[in-house]
Amino acid sequence: MNTQKKHWKDKLHEIIYEADTKAGKLFDVILLYTIIASILLVMLESVESIDAKYHNVLDVLEWIITILFTIEYIARVVTVKKPFKYICSFYGVIDLLSTIPKYISLAFGGIQALVALRALRLLRVFRILKLVRYLGASNALLKALKASRVKISVFLFAVIIISIILGTIMYLVEGNQSGFTSIPTSVYWCIVTLTTVGYGDISPITPLGQFIASLVMVLGYGIIAVPTGIVTAEYAAQTKNEKQTPQSNISLNSKCCLNCLAENHKDNADFCYNCGKKLHR
Amino acid sequence: MNTQKKHWKDKLHEIIYEADTKAGKLFDVILLYTIIASILLVMLESVESIDAKYHNVLDVLEWIITILFTIEYIARVVTVKKPFKYICSFYGVIDLLSTIPKYISLAFGGIQALVALRALRLLRVFRILKLVRYLGASNALLKALKASRVKISVFLFAVIIISIILGTIMYLVEGNQSGFTSIPTSVYWCIVTLTTVGYGDISPITPLGQFIASLVMVLGYGIIAVPTGIVTAEYAAQTKNEKQTPQSNISLNSKCCLNCLAENHKDNADFCYNCGKKLHR
Amino acid sequence: MNTQKKHWKDKLHEIIYEADTKAGKLFDVILLYTIIASILLVMLESVESIDAKYHNVLDVLEWIITILFTIEYIARVVTVKKPFKYICSFYGVIDLLSTIPKYISLAFGGIQALVALRALRLLRVFRILKLVRYLGASNALLKALKASRVKISVFLFAVIIISIILGTIMYLVEGNQSGFTSIPTSVYWCIVTLTTVGYGDISPITPLGQFIASLVMVLGYGIIAVPTGIVTAEYAAQTKNEKQTPQSNISLNSKCCLNCLAENHKDNADFCYNCGKKLHR
Amino acid sequence: MNTQKKHWKDKLHEIIYEADTKAGKLFDVILLYTIIASILLVMLESVESIDAKYHNVLDVLEWIITILFTIEYIARVVTVKKPFKYICSFYGVIDLLSTIPKYISLAFGGIQALVALRALRLLRVFRILKLVRYLGASNALLKALKASRVKISVFLFAVIIISIILGTIMYLVEGNQSGFTSIPTSVYWCIVTLTTVGYGDISPITPLGQFIASLVMVLGYGIIAVPTGIVTAEYAAQTKNEKQTPQSNISLNSKCCLNCLAENHKDNADFCYNCGKKLHR
Repeated sequence: MNTQKKHWKDKLHEIIYEADTKAGKLFDVILLYTIIASILLVMLESVESIDAKYHNVLDVLEWIITILFTIEYIARVVTVKKPFKYICSFYGVIDLLSTIPKYISLAFGGIQALVALRALRLLRVFRILKLVRYLGASNALLKALKASRVKISVFLFAVIIISIILGTIMYLVEGNQSGFTSIPTSVYWCIVTLTTVGYGDISPITPLGQFIASLVMVLGYGIIAVPTGIVTAEYAAQTKNEKQTPQSNISLNSKCCLNCLAENHKDNADFCYNCGKKLHR
Repeated sequence: MNTQKKHWKDKLHEIIYEADTKAGKLFDVILLYTIIASILLVMLESVESIDAKYHNVLDVLEWIITILFTIEYIARVVTVKKPFKYICSFYGVIDLLSTIPKYISLAFGGIQALVALRALRLLRVFRILKLVRYLGASNALLKALKASRVKISVFLFAVIIISIILGTIMYLVEGNQSGFTSIPTSVYWCIVTLTTVGYGDISPITPLGQFIASLVMVLGYGIIAVPTGIVTAEYAAQTKNEKQTPQSNISLNSKCCLNCLAENHKDNADFCYNCGKKLHR
Repeated sequence: MNTQKKHWKDKLHEIIYEADTKAGKLFDVILLYTIIASILLVMLESVESIDAKYHNVLDVLEWIITILFTIEYIARVVTVKKPFKYICSFYGVIDLLSTIPKYISLAFGGIQALVALRALRLLRVFRILKLVRYLGASNALLKALKASRVKISVFLFAVIIISIILGTIMYLVEGNQSGFTSIPTSVYWCIVTLTTVGYGDISPITPLGQFIASLVMVLGYGIIAVPTGIVTAEYAAQTKNEKQTPQSNISLNSKCCLNCLAENHKDNADFCYNCGKKLHR
Repeated sequence: MNTQKKHWKDKLHEIIYEADTKAGKLFDVILLYTIIASILLVMLESVESIDAKYHNVLDVLEWIITILFTIEYIARVVTVKKPFKYICSFYGVIDLLSTIPKYISLAFGGIQALVALRALRLLRVFRILKLVRYLGASNALLKALKASRVKISVFLFAVIIISIILGTIMYLVEGNQSGFTSIPTSVYWCIVTLTTVGYGDISPITPLGQFIASLVMVLGYGIIAVPTGIVTAEYAAQTKNEKQTPQSNISLNSKCCLNCLAENHKDNADFCYNCGKKLHR
């Protein structure tokens, strides 16, 4: 590899993987819009009346996006020092899966499951949304959610146990004629009611069933307070901490190690904290 | 312009644009009731059975309100020093649009879209509700909402992404027979479920679909805690700040510059903070 | 009035109007159960199948309760020093209205509106629930609700304005075929959606309508945070204050002035704080 | 009893009743999965299509679980010093009821009510979930819920009174044609609406009914803030206390007295705090 080519590769790496330079930001914004456009395509194609009318237009647009994604994928593989590591990484797999559906449909014909594959493109949004971090907005929020993760899991687990017990009771009380055909269906109804969603596809008709349902609703109304209380308290604690140590999340940037793809290097870092290789610029 | 006429204009300006004098408050209250009456008229007219019976009465009342609004609009234009600026301002346009529907229908006949134009009158309420500010009630609330705006936007954006992913999965799982006819419809269903609205016009019927729906509901139940946590923490912080600096929002009044329409002058202000012109009284 | 009779009256007054003695508490508990029984009677009578079967039993029970309430009403009038003041007071009117429905039906036959009159008995529960205050439970809660009353009113007013604007838009977008038959109906739908109730009796069917509905839901999901934030912050402030001044709500008892019916006298009070008359015991 | 047998019994006691040793933890995990499997069996059996196909498989699996539970129950009775006390304790009864349904069905044939008996097995999960305590997660949460128990009860009681009053009003306003057939049904509707569940099986159709329903919804939207506010404030207070006294809930372990089944002994405890007998190990 000669020096000039390496330079060109480094530049491309910076544009594709980072968001500190103007070109890098532009690349991210264009990629974001391409991904959104590709998602809209998948959605529109699923609407029968639109697909019948504009099938050819949608097909051409899908090809354009597939080609753009192909170019991007090749560029990503080329500019990374350890291509195999990228290909096997989470985003590497997502990028590949986002690119290939059209090629597969060319070989095997348009099968339903490809829609799911194309919908995976949405996950790519999250990579670009590392940008969101720099808004500094969701940082305390994420910390609060992380801190309350275990507690909310325990709470949701309790909700599920309550749903199973109450669902079984309702199955015995209501029986088949009002839609409570089996225990799983009754549990489903119980979750629908406890979370105050209330479709109404299944609803109790016997007086006793309606009485128990009322208890379930009031219970659901009462326990919705619990996750809210947890998140609020944790979030309030986080924001208080943040004000006391305001420097904590300023020094992060969007630099990305050429060697091991590690992120969140400090601004004044010269070497990767993960693999020890010298960082680009 | 002679002195007396100017005096008359100034008085009218004070009555129409401000709410510190008795006459000004009376004007605002009458205007508020006229606007509410005009909204009720639009609503009643849309009910077919009422419109069929009382069409003439409603028509006469609408003419009365139109004439009142016309007089008010002319008075506003006349008393302001820079009428063109007022006409082009947000409330100037709203005032005009609130006044003209009946004249348009006279020229072109009663078209449906005029209803929307008349509903715009509701926006006029907000001008009078600057009065609400003086209740001192919603001040900390507005600050809290402003402070949590970015965070809630990020959160709602995450909700939309989750809805699209889960909606696509449900479209693949449920298929046409239970109403999940296209991905946009499925995403609509997912938002209906995640926000715990739950119409029941579309609801899953396959066991797997019901299982995923249950997960969506429990998820929705869990994440409703997030915006609540944000607003609560911010609001608590705002009220704490407010108690420490209680003078902060006392000195505002409802004075309004005759020249540039700027508001929120300090009580002891003699010149407009915006254009530098001397303030009336 | 001789001394003994006065003594007897005073004792009865203490039993009926206060809850500090054993007999007073017992009276309140019996009254509470009688009221609950009378409410259950009204409810059961409204169920056609039960009324057809047990009409006579329900009728007899209603007569028993009516007689009990009559005795209680007479006792209340007799033991109070200013009977006319009691009769005209809020609870005096409620007590009378709770007693007379059966007598009226005897004179004019069973008319529908009497059911409403009998349901008023439920309001009597609140008098007895002054007992709840002594649990010390809802005191900080009531203060918090009182402190946040204005703010929540402003908030609910904003919700109603938003509902009218969005309801009008939905009326124009959806039209008659999906149930949006008039603007009031659309506004009703909008409140149903914004509060995440979601009956599903009216639901949008056009793509644009479903899109706007999604926005309404996400909006409703976001703004549910506001009243919660207000109440939480105020309640947290109240509980903090309470801990700093723990004596504030201990000294209240259930004594009640024989003369003016004023309540919440201090434990060591000898004279009514309201009318200056000597308090009984 | 010879020493060796006692030793064997003690070891088994440790495995079954405690979770500090490796074997004890393994036992708990296996029991947890067996219970979950038995619950899944009950659920699957209730689905007609599955029961028709795999009746024999489900029957055999149920027998296996019944035998496992029988062995466990006998082991529990044998290793406890006071077997009669265990048999009469809450978990002792649950354990017995979890074991016998299959034996009963052998004697009397498969009756419906046995399903409820088998669903009781779910309650056994809570015993194992004493493990959850060691995650330290739900401790502050449980304390907060305990502290706000009375207040939330008062609140829920108020919700029920409001529901009865509003339900009676709606019964008078709407009448039979829209599903408000009796006061209990109307009260049921009111709870469905106030808790924002909103099935839509009963919904108002008269303009006045829809107007009152709107008020109920907005009211429900407003008062959902109350339990949330209570729990949040209490939880925030609990977490603050916990940080100040971090040692408070560390010293608990899963030891269990052989004699009286008391739990939550301190790590360095040698004698049971409840019955004074020497603790095992």
